[in-house]
Amino acid sequence: MSYQKENPSVRSVDPHGVWHPGPVFSQVSTTTGPVRIVATSGQVGIDENNNIVADTDAQIVQAFTNLERALAAAGAVVKDVYKLVWYVVDFDPNHRLYRPHLIKFLDGHSPATTLVPVPCLAEPGLKFEIEAYAAVRLELPRTVDVVVVGAGLSGLKAASDVQKAGYSCLVVEARDRVGGKTWSHDPLGNGRNVDVGACWINDTNQAKVYDLAKSLGLKLVQQYVEGDVIQDDIGGGLSTFKYGTNPRDLAEKNGVENMVYIRDLFEHTCQTIDIRNPTGAGKDFDTYNLEQWVKMQGGGETALASVRVWTRVMLGLEPSEISTLFFLDYCKSGGGLMQMRSDKKNGGQYYKLAQGTQALSVGLAESLAPGSIVLNSPVRRIEQAPEAILVSTGRGEIHGRRVIVSVPTPLYKEITFEPPLPKAKEQLSQANKLGCTFKVMLLYAEPWWRASGLCGMVQSFQGPVCVTRDSSIEETGNYSLTCFAGGKPGRDLLALARKERHDAVLSFVRRVFGPFTKTIPEPLAITDHPWIQDQWSQGCPCPAAPPGAMTNHGHALRTPHLRAHFVGTETAFEWKGYLDGAVRSGERGAKEVIQALSRSRL
Amino acid sequence: MSYQKENPSVRSVDPHGVWHPGPVFSQVSTTTGPVRIVATSGQVGIDENNNIVADTDAQIVQAFTNLERALAAAGAVVKDVYKLVWYVVDFDPNHRLYRPHLIKFLDGHSPATTLVPVPCLAEPGLKFEIEAYAAVRLELPRTVDVVVVGAGLSGLKAASDVQKAGYSCLVVEARDRVGGKTWSHDPLGNGRNVDVGACWINDTNQAKVYDLAKSLGLKLVQQYVEGDVIQDDIGGGLSTFKYGTNPRDLAEKNGVENMVYIRDLFEHTCQTIDIRNPTGAGKDFDTYNLEQWVKMQGGGETALASVRVWTRVMLGLEPSEISTLFFLDYCKSGGGLMQMRSDKKNGGQYYKLAQGTQALSVGLAESLAPGSIVLNSPVRRIEQAPEAILVSTGRGEIHGRRVIVSVPTPLYKEITFEPPLPKAKEQLSQANKLGCTFKVMLLYAEPWWRASGLCGMVQSFQGPVCVTRDSSIEETGNYSLTCFAGGKPGRDLLALARKERHDAVLSFVRRVFGPFTKTIPEPLAITDHPWIQDQWSQGCPCPAAPPGAMTNHGHALRTPHLRAHFVGTETAFEWKGYLDGAVRSGERGAKEVIQALSRSRL
Repeated sequence: MSYQKENPSVRSVDPHGVWHPGPVFSQVSTTTGPVRIVATSGQVGIDENNNIVADTDAQIVQAFTNLERALAAAGAVVKDVYKLVWYVVDFDPNHRLYRPHLIKFLDGHSPATTLVPVPCLAEPGLKFEIEAYAAVRLELPRTVDVVVVGAGLSGLKAASDVQKAGYSCLVVEARDRVGGKTWSHDPLGNGRNVDVGACWINDTNQAKVYDLAKSLGLKLVQQYVEGDVIQDDIGGGLSTFKYGTNPRDLAEKNGVENMVYIRDLFEHTCQTIDIRNPTGAGKDFDTYNLEQWVKMQGGGETALASVRVWTRVMLGLEPSEISTLFFLDYCKSGGGLMQMRSDKKNGGQYYKLAQGTQALSVGLAESLAPGSIVLNSPVRRIEQAPEAILVSTGRGEIHGRRVIVSVPTPLYKEITFEPPLPKAKEQLSQANKLGCTFKVMLLYAEPWWRASGLCGMVQSFQGPVCVTRDSSIEETGNYSLTCFAGGKPGRDLLALARKERHDAVLSFVRRVFGPFTKTIPEPLAITDHPWIQDQWSQGCPCPAAPPGAMTNHGHALRTPHLRAHFVGTETAFEWKGYLDGAVRSGERGAKEVIQALSRSRL
Repeated sequence: MSYQKENPSVRSVDPHGVWHPGPVFSQVSTTTGPVRIVATSGQVGIDENNNIVADTDAQIVQAFTNLERALAAAGAVVKDVYKLVWYVVDFDPNHRLYRPHLIKFLDGHSPATTLVPVPCLAEPGLKFEIEAYAAVRLELPRTVDVVVVGAGLSGLKAASDVQKAGYSCLVVEARDRVGGKTWSHDPLGNGRNVDVGACWINDTNQAKVYDLAKSLGLKLVQQYVEGDVIQDDIGGGLSTFKYGTNPRDLAEKNGVENMVYIRDLFEHTCQTIDIRNPTGAGKDFDTYNLEQWVKMQGGGETALASVRVWTRVMLGLEPSEISTLFFLDYCKSGGGLMQMRSDKKNGGQYYKLAQGTQALSVGLAESLAPGSIVLNSPVRRIEQAPEAILVSTGRGEIHGRRVIVSVPTPLYKEITFEPPLPKAKEQLSQANKLGCTFKVMLLYAEPWWRASGLCGMVQSFQGPVCVTRDSSIEETGNYSLTCFAGGKPGRDLLALARKERHDAVLSFVRRVFGPFTKTIPEPLAITDHPWIQDQWSQGCPCPAAPPGAMTNHGHALRTPHLRAHFVGTETAFEWKGYLDGAVRSGERGAKEVIQALSRSRL
């Protein structure tokens, strides 16, 4: 077993001679060994934007959400909580509104608790507050050759290569699972995995991830592209066109032609970029954002709407937020805009994996030596001495000779580096921006769109969804549409409560598919994950640079910092932001470390 | 010193420049090293049976009782508390009802505290709630040959033998003292020790404990049996008879004769039991309980009342709760019913120890190597690997080669065994029942009953006390009556508050002794200990089996579980439930371990 056996941090005790409090709590809890203490502030019904949530029940939900995030940020999970105290305004013992939420939050865990009725809380209108005391067991310090921070695909690939080269290696992961942004969820519990994160690969120019999939014996499923795409025009006009051709008769006069012109110009320009030295010949493109470039090239409304679809889906950002050079280089890393956006042979979305892409990460994880992976253990500090590194993790300290950091550049701020990162790397990490690409997977009993000659793809200039794709895996009975939102419409969708957000997506599907299909069934399950709210991703799929950042700090992207090396799909030369890029970057990081370690052997 | 030096877990600090809060609390507390954290739920005036205690003062007492039990269950004592928070409904700064109880609870310790006046608590009617945060210092992991769980007489005897054989051994004890159910208390602080637990031995067939007492140089005091026994008949009729003879003229016609018949039949049957194989020939006796047996044999009211006295005093249970075979075997283990109940030569109650029987345990403890005993350190987990054991205690982890568990079988549930106990052992531990034998020791300035020709013994069919005995130690000026209650009357007595319970015992003494004595003085001190509420005993003196348990699971009583061995007076072949049985079982456990360890040396 490659995962470390987890010793519980907290034990609940049922004292003889004291009344038994039932399933929700215990009379006393104790930590089980040397621990790190985690204490939260009292969590109330105030949302991310500092607004008090309206009704009491919603406040309670928000307070528990905040509590969970606060604990996770400090590397603690609910099972690590040894004491909960909650404060209730207008307490009514016959209507304990918090109770179902508490039971759900605890999920079988039973810490010591105290309930405190109070006349009011810190702000008028607040009705409920809850605070947690948690403890995380610290394991004895360990020593290995290499520590990998992050058990996503790039980190696991690096660890695998390092171990194959004969060096000891521990992978430390903040989450309670491996895979990072490869995460396959089974919403009905019957094997119909949907990919909550990265989803597609191909078998030609994505050789690295393809080889990995093959070596793990994973089954590939070709993307369905038969039939028509639905075009949702500016103003809401709907039309269809055959997959692989262009839309026709859009609202803007000559809009299609102008859009094709801009696209072809972008493709042509993109092919001139040297992915090993993008700021060389391409330097000027780093002085304006992509929206500016489109306008400078005479792009009209339709063209700009089309470019918005690209960046919203591909990076979760608006064209106005991205350096033109960054997007040119990004597309070129996947062989060009057309190839990267293609669902056909050689394209970015040619194959899915029948079990979901997390199988890539799980397969790598299982190939590691026993006990190589420590979960629930965020890294908050990396200290370097002349001959060694010390990684402070949520579950103890690890001494090593090299460290490979696989977290996205904007998340470097979550780790204290001592000595600090070089200025350029620090500034790069501050400049690069994680977008809000947001997918909602609708799982159906059958691929109802196919019967109407539709391939399942929608391209919308109107929103809130930008693009939909057929993400079915026929052999598991997974018939699904993946609805992509991103950039501003994505952020707007995420500002809605879960239910309203799903309703908005479903009514989008009804609006755009309705005219071309008979009946649209209700989905069996709706799956989504707000990656931008997920503290261990803070966005997806890949950080992007605003104008100037590549020119000024881009050179620092892959440079090691003393004994710390940096990987992650954004650091790949090829297929940045894709699974293949992640695997390539992990391979590169491992190679750097292996060379350094073997040099030091001489 | 055989006890481990205890390093305080918590230190109170008096900050310069902050007002001094007096004796009850400190402005700040700190833990002193690596610790285990213990947190209790808010403790309120709810008793063991989930009832809210009536008045506020009683609620406060109950809350502190619960708090103490909750802390103890997690292996913490008051000195380990670093923070106390209490919540008061209807708070009146001029009448701080909790204050005397708080001072008593803290007993000189002064943690950081906070008082929170609140409008109400979790249930209507609750007036006071208190929660504690405690810390227990963790010592570094240690490695020994043998770990003994429990510093009662059996555990200490085992440890002593193991160390004498040249193996290293640590004894880990949950309580703050050694001795388990040997506990000698000095209520007046002037050396007049009374035995709160086990009290008697003899010098013939109890050779093991007698040898131990002699080797420790302990002084033996013969039981006083001169004069008359008082018989308290069904209906409350009082009479006397000479010690060693039978009562006369009881209310039931032929009651005495029938009682003697049943007694002699039981004695005769008991002598047929093979203590090394009780379920062999005795198997049928395991199909009914003792009350059924008495009735089947034609036992009437008086006979049954007499049998009730036996089991209530000897096991704290009703005859209806005990397998006939169990009681036959139990009595046979002490040579038979008559011998076990006798206070004369060869009988179970022939000698007392002048210093009290805890001296046996203290003597053994002091004979161990320095630092061999860890107090206040409950064991909650015993993990076994192929070649080693890991015992997780309240004060740190101990690695060893063998473990000897000396806790009563029903308390196995308090320890997580990994791998789990075999099914039969588990079921035995669930089936065996700890009774409620309850003693109240009345300490007087003189043995006033003797002057009236009474030996101090009462046998009561009426209750609430079943039996009294003279437990005086003349040379220390300890003139005492020990009043035994047990079974249902014992549980009823314990349902009373301490004061009412003592009043009930004193009025019993006045009622039964009154007619035969001049004046009955007030006792100088009243001592008792509700063993059934004590979480480290959960009853006394010895677990008993209901029908079927011996036949089904009895074979698992003494069998080791991999590298874990099991001792305790109930596992003895001879003198089960007695001090001699405890010593014998400890000797047997040590022998098993020494043989295993010496085999592994070869």
